[in-house]
Order: sequence, then structure tokens, then C-alpha cells
Amino acid sequence: MNWIDELTSTLGDSIHCDEACLLAHAGDKWFASHLPDAVLLASTTEQISEAMRIASKYNVPVTARGAGVGYVGGCVPSRGGLVISLAPMTRIIELNPADGIARVEAGCLTADIQDAAAELGWFYPPDPASRKESSIGGNIATNAGGPRCLKYGVTRNYVLGLTVVLADGRIVRCGGRTHKNKQGFDLVGLFCGSEGMLGIITEATLRIIPTPPARAAIQAFFPDFALAAKAVQDILQAGHLPAAMEITDAFTLEAARKHLGADAMPAGMQGHIIVEIDGQERAIKEELPSIMSILQSCGSINAMSATEPEDIERIWQLRREFSASLRATGLTKLNEDIVIPRSALVELVDFCSQLQQTHDIPIACFGHSGDGNIHSNIMIPLDAKGNERRAEAEALVHELFAWVLARGGSITGEHGIGIAKAPWFEGAIGSNAFELHQQIKSALDPLGILNPDKMGL
Amino acid sequence: MNWIDELTSTLGDSIHCDEACLLAHAGDKWFASHLPDAVLLASTTEQISEAMRIASKYNVPVTARGAGVGYVGGCVPSRGGLVISLAPMTRIIELNPADGIARVEAGCLTADIQDAAAELGWFYPPDPASRKESSIGGNIATNAGGPRCLKYGVTRNYVLGLTVVLADGRIVRCGGRTHKNKQGFDLVGLFCGSEGMLGIITEATLRIIPTPPARAAIQAFFPDFALAAKAVQDILQAGHLPAAMEITDAFTLEAARKHLGADAMPAGMQGHIIVEIDGQERAIKEELPSIMSILQSCGSINAMSATEPEDIERIWQLRREFSASLRATGLTKLNEDIVIPRSALVELVDFCSQLQQTHDIPIACFGHSGDGNIHSNIMIPLDAKGNERRAEAEALVHELFAWVLARGGSITGEHGIGIAKAPWFEGAIGSNAFELHQQIKSALDPLGILNPDKMGL
Repeated sequence: MNWIDELTSTLGDSIHCDEACLLAHAGDKWFASHLPDAVLLASTTEQISEAMRIASKYNVPVTARGAGVGYVGGCVPSRGGLVISLAPMTRIIELNPADGIARVEAGCLTADIQDAAAELGWFYPPDPASRKESSIGGNIATNAGGPRCLKYGVTRNYVLGLTVVLADGRIVRCGGRTHKNKQGFDLVGLFCGSEGMLGIITEATLRIIPTPPARAAIQAFFPDFALAAKAVQDILQAGHLPAAMEITDAFTLEAARKHLGADAMPAGMQGHIIVEIDGQERAIKEELPSIMSILQSCGSINAMSATEPEDIERIWQLRREFSASLRATGLTKLNEDIVIPRSALVELVDFCSQLQQTHDIPIACFGHSGDGNIHSNIMIPLDAKGNERRAEAEALVHELFAWVLARGGSITGEHGIGIAKAPWFEGAIGSNAFELHQQIKSALDPLGILNPDKMGL
Repeated sequence: MNWIDELTSTLGDSIHCDEACLLAHAGDKWFASHLPDAVLLASTTEQISEAMRIASKYNVPVTARGAGVGYVGGCVPSRGGLVISLAPMTRIIELNPADGIARVEAGCLTADIQDAAAELGWFYPPDPASRKESSIGGNIATNAGGPRCLKYGVTRNYVLGLTVVLADGRIVRCGGRTHKNKQGFDLVGLFCGSEGMLGIITEATLRIIPTPPARAAIQAFFPDFALAAKAVQDILQAGHLPAAMEITDAFTLEAARKHLGADAMPAGMQGHIIVEIDGQERAIKEELPSIMSILQSCGSINAMSATEPEDIERIWQLRREFSASLRATGLTKLNEDIVIPRSALVELVDFCSQLQQTHDIPIACFGHSGDGNIHSNIMIPLDAKGNERRAEAEALVHELFAWVLARGGSITGEHGIGIAKAPWFEGAIGSNAFELHQQIKSALDPLGILNPDKMGL
């Protein structure tokens, strides 16, 4: 009996080998893909455990996936084998404000958990841009971020307990439902962000907190990017810890003005920031004028604030239009989610415009300025024959990453390594840290069957 | 040449074998101790790397320690060998608000880091009770908590980067100085809370945040513990996220009244809570009356609030007097830092008074009610001959832990496992999770020389 027969005889209807299903599970939002040989549409932890027992018996590569909306090829089954989809496991098992927890299956969409908590007046803060289409299991496997990380921290900070299926099929429960837990090594943390390479997360217990009763947003334009970056520093230095602080560069603003029309914003702007604050209503009222006056002292133009939900939404909508405007240029963009120390914001933008001149390839920078996590979008231009200058764009990415690492930064703050960034991984973390990855990987997955090739492991 | 000779010839004056020094490095605040054969008073990462190369060559057990103020025997060199003290490494290498980071050597006292940051208007939130005498390296190795975890999270949430010496002497740098970093597995998290069993932390890059401009504290007594616990839930449910919420039980209050005099508090009180809030000044002004009215609706007695630093300090001083009052009973206390789901506060106190009746051994409960982390102090009584009834007290601890685990809790929320809780460890986390600990330990420390016997590994 081969492994697919054994899987089918054990798990029956949940195993799929038809071409449509294989094709639908061949990759994520990154360009590369590879067909698996079979797909398990899982509905229980026990099924996944059974599948892993069989996979390890036959030494078959297994790639777990949630919604499949990653950016780095993290769920591409690059050696075929079995894909385990957690997408059908969408139950919110328990929402318990008295304990401050939500227990959910890995396939739950993050926004659905947030909505369910919000109905009870509670709050799950992590807010990756994909939150309406990405699953919590994928968020955990990549330790997802988002604008609100500045105040609230990343996904890891909200995971109290996990149910994980190991490479050999054993089911392990780490952490639990308490808000503190010092029982042994941080296994929960080890699985968070492990990109499906150490185990398959099937269920999570999340920490939820009371919803802040009020929020507000501010936006402003600047004639000089350095002034926008200065505003970011001055706001923090004045004792504010906003939920989010987003920054946008001149290239993006110009694309947005072309796309949205001249009324949307003043001409010639070199920087734009959005500040979101939340907390008690009176705190918001106190913070708003204080932040507005900091913006003014930094030379802001058209600064405006909003306290009503629909007006706040309108400010964020403009931010989303920036992305859409870049897409509207018709150019393919390579979205690199680099992180730099916060003080290096201006240096980064200067370096990018230098790169842009040298290579004649535009780079659009915008992102989470408060924690230095700037999405640097390399806009791949066309050559005289109408073909994408992809090789040159990739050479530029290489230069950009080298600069970021030399400047004490990180080549990924949100998307992870996957296949896309594997070539840079060992260089980024150093050979001793890479060796530690190999040791941990071998200890937990001695056959190397869990999501091979990611991180170059 | 034996290992001590080789160490001495390599590291010279930093190696100590005199009795006074050995004795001073034999244990922590827990009762058990064991003499090491030699002590390295380390001043650089490179020295520690050299020491580990020699220790692994000779298969010598090595126990690293910071200030040695733990509660679970975590730095007892139970098999002798080498103790590496990081206490001399007290440099604050860099304090950089523009990047939001502090770079420190592992021997820095946590309070010194906080004070240095505060001078610049910045804030390192984790606040273990020992912060004035414990080192940041120890805080990281035990993932220290404290009252403020409720709002701000544990030590792990503030560690961005680590320098670690591995068992074989390799120096590895994990994480870095960026606020987000998705480069590979969470090695920083793996070393946080690993109790010196996977590597020796020599340097850390910490995240610091703007100091909240204002704070306030509230305290109130309750005629019934259940009302105090209800107030905790109601405050959160109303959308407040206090920095800290501490709760105290009847036994402790009675001891405090005896110790401090009848004027200190009303008679017959069964519960007491302290709420600390921080943030913008006007937020504090809005939250104070709202929280006060919640307390009143829960039947509070003598509720009072404070907004001036010295008055806030006076409220916390009362909390410290509670501890002192328990010591003043003359009984030895076993301080167990259990955690339960927050909704189980009343059940816990009821179970403790039931235990107290069955065993005729008093239990004093107080602690961090917001995250369910309650220090349950078993007060060891004397028998007719004046000897401590320690065996009975330990039997009671066993019953308490069994109940806590059955109720979905954790046997430690702050102190860690060490030697003291090793007998319960596998039972607490389950055999699969225990096996994972063994696999990770063997992968990183194949000779098993790093801090043996802790966690039963």
C-alpha cells in the first residue's frame, strides 16, 4: 500500500487528489507554486495526527496551510507530498471574558475572532492587513504583525496556549488558559513564527483584553520626509504611545495624487503620517491637541483629526488607496517588509532614492514608522521590449537587504522567511544562529518532512 | 591538567576557589544549596565562551547566575562544577530613545535600567518585586513578571535581542535592535525563561517605551472576598485595563491588622484590592471616578484614591506591609506562585480555606488578580515539640497543585520550575511536552552540562 492509499483508507473523504484541489493548494500570494500529491481538508486535530503518523512512516513531505495568503511562499509544497489544509477548522470554541481568553480552531479567520470578541466588548489587537482573509493559525505560524503592534505587540503576545501536532503525529498541548505561565521552556513561543516547520498548530487559546472605549486618528502631509520622521520621534518623546503610526513617502504620494486626483492632496508632498490613538475618551481629547501641535511644530500641512468611526475609517481608507495607487501604475511591485531601527527612517528613504537613481527603478516606501517596519515596494519597470526588468529589480533588493542588515535591521518584520527570503536567511542571522535553527529543526522533525525548503532548512 | 587548572591558566584572576566565594555561590533564596568547585566572576562574553569550551571539554556541570535571588533553587549548582556569575557585568551599554532600546549587560540590576531610562523620560515596564536586587539576566532567564504584567506583559515582551553563550562555547546573537523581527524561529523567546539550561545570556537589547505621563492608585476593603473578585471582573468588563490589580485575602488582612494596629484598617475585612492605572492625565481623571463607582457598587469599604506619587507609594507600602505582617507571624511561609484562570479567584480562595481546615495549616493568598497569578503562602505551623510541620505543609502543597492543574491553572507564574518544582513538572505539562523539553535540551546541550537537575532535566 502506498501512502496515499493508506491515508485514504484511514481518513476517507477528507483526502483529495483531484486536479482542481491540488491546484488550489499549490501556493500562496508569492509567484512560485508546486502541486502537492494529495490534500487533507482537515476537520479535527486527531485527523492531522493520523496523517502525520502515516506521513512519517512513508517519509512524505507535509505542508500545512491556513488561508494561503502569505507573501513568501511559506505554504508552497515545494517537494509535493501532502498538503494539510486547516481551512475547514473554523470553530470559535469558547469566548470567555471572565478568563480573558478565546479558544479557537486554527482555521478561524482573524477578523471573525475579533468581531466575535467585540460583540462582548473585548478586543484581540493584532491586525495584519490580511486579517479578513488570513486564518489565526497562519497568523500564529508567521507571528503576524500589523499597524497596532506599536502599542499592542505582535501575535505572539496574545497566544497563551496551543495544540500542536508534531512530525511523528504526537499531539502536544503547550501553555494553557492562564495569562501567566512559567512552566518550562517557552514552547508556545517556539511554535509561533515557526512557519509550519516544527509542528502543525491546530488550536489556540488567545488572550483578549477590554476594548478601549474611544479612539481617534490624525493625518498630516509634510513638505519633507525628514519632517514626517521627526514628528514620529517627537510624538513618542512627548510621552504618547499611539496604537499605530504610519508613514508614507513622496513616490507613493505622487502615485496617489495621480490616481485620486489633485483634490485628494496638496502637490509636491514628500511625506504623510497617520497616527491612531485609543484609550479612555478624555485621554483621547487630551492627546489629540497635543499631537496636533507636535505635527504643526514639525511643519505639517493639512493636518486633520477624526474621532467618529466613519471619519477614522476615511483616514485609513486613504492609506489603502496608497496601495491601490501603486497597483494602478501597472507595474509589478516586490513588497519587502524590512525593519530598521526607528532612528534610521530618513536614512532608509534616502538610501532608497539613491538606489532608485542608480538603477532607474522606483521604490515606494510606506509602513509602520513607530516600529521601523517599512514596506519597501520595488516597482519593476518594463524594458524597451515590454518585458519586466525582474533580474535588475532583484539585484536592487539584494543591495537594499545588505544595507538594512548593515544598519542593524531585519529583512522581514511581518511576512517571514519562507522560500522567498531563504537565500538571505543565513547571512541575515549569522552562521551560529543558523546552526541553532538546524539543531532545533532536527530535534523536532528528524526526518525533515515538515514544510521542507523554508528558511533554507 | 584538570579543568580547574585549565580554567585558571586561561582566565586567571577571574576564577575563584576560596571557601567564602564557593559558599556565596551555592544557592539562591530557596532553602537547598550545594557548593560549586569553582566560580568564574565574569566580566566579558568572551571569558564565558572560553569557560564553556573548557567545561564541555571536561564534561563539567556549569550553573550561571545573576544576583542569585530566585525562589526555586534555579541557580543551585546541585552537582558542583563551575558557577559562572554574571554579577560583575553591570554596564548599561546604550540607552537610545530614538530607537526605543536599551542595550545592557546581563548583570545590570533591573531597577538601575529602569532608573536610567526614566531619566530620559522612558520606561522599562516589567517590575518583579525583586527589581532592586535582581539582575536583568536573571529576569530574562526566568521571564520575570510583576504586578504591571496585566497591562504591559512579561519580560519576554521587552527583549528584542540577546547575546548567548552556548554549551560548547559558541557565541550566538539572536534577534537584534529592531522592534519587529521575523527572521526565523523565536530564539530570543526560547532563551527567555530557559533557566540557564540552554545557554548563558550575557547581553540583552531591551525595548523601552515612552513613560506614561500620569498614574494613580486606588485601594479598597471588602467584607467578602467574592465582592473583591467581582470588582476585578467588573473593572475589566467596563473597558479599563489597569497597569496592576492586586488582591488580598482575609488571613493576610487579619495578620496585617494585628501587626499594624487597629487603626490601619477596619475589622473583619475579607478582601482588599489595589488598582493602579496610568496614562494621560485626563484619562486618569476620567478613569478614577469610574473605577471608584464600580468598587462602591461591589460593596467596597474605605475606598480611597491617590494621584500624587507619595500617596500612591503609601498605598503600595501597605501592600508590602501585608508581606511583612505574614513574616511577623514568625511562621515560615512557602510562597507558591500559582496561576489560575481569572474567573476562578473565589474558587481558589474557597479551596484554600477548605485545605486550611482539613490540615489545620493556614494559607495566605494575595497577588496579581488581573492575571490570576496568586501568591499562595502556606504558613508552616509548629508541632507540640516546636518543630515545623514541613511534611504536612508539603502534602498540602501537593493537594493545592493538583487542584490548580485540574482547574486549568499553572503551578508557577513567575518563579519558574528550578529544583523546587521539578517533582511536579512533567505532571503539570504532560508527557509529550516534557519529551519536547528533553529533545530541545539534548539538541542545544548534548552533554547536559548546563544547569543540570532543573526542571528534572
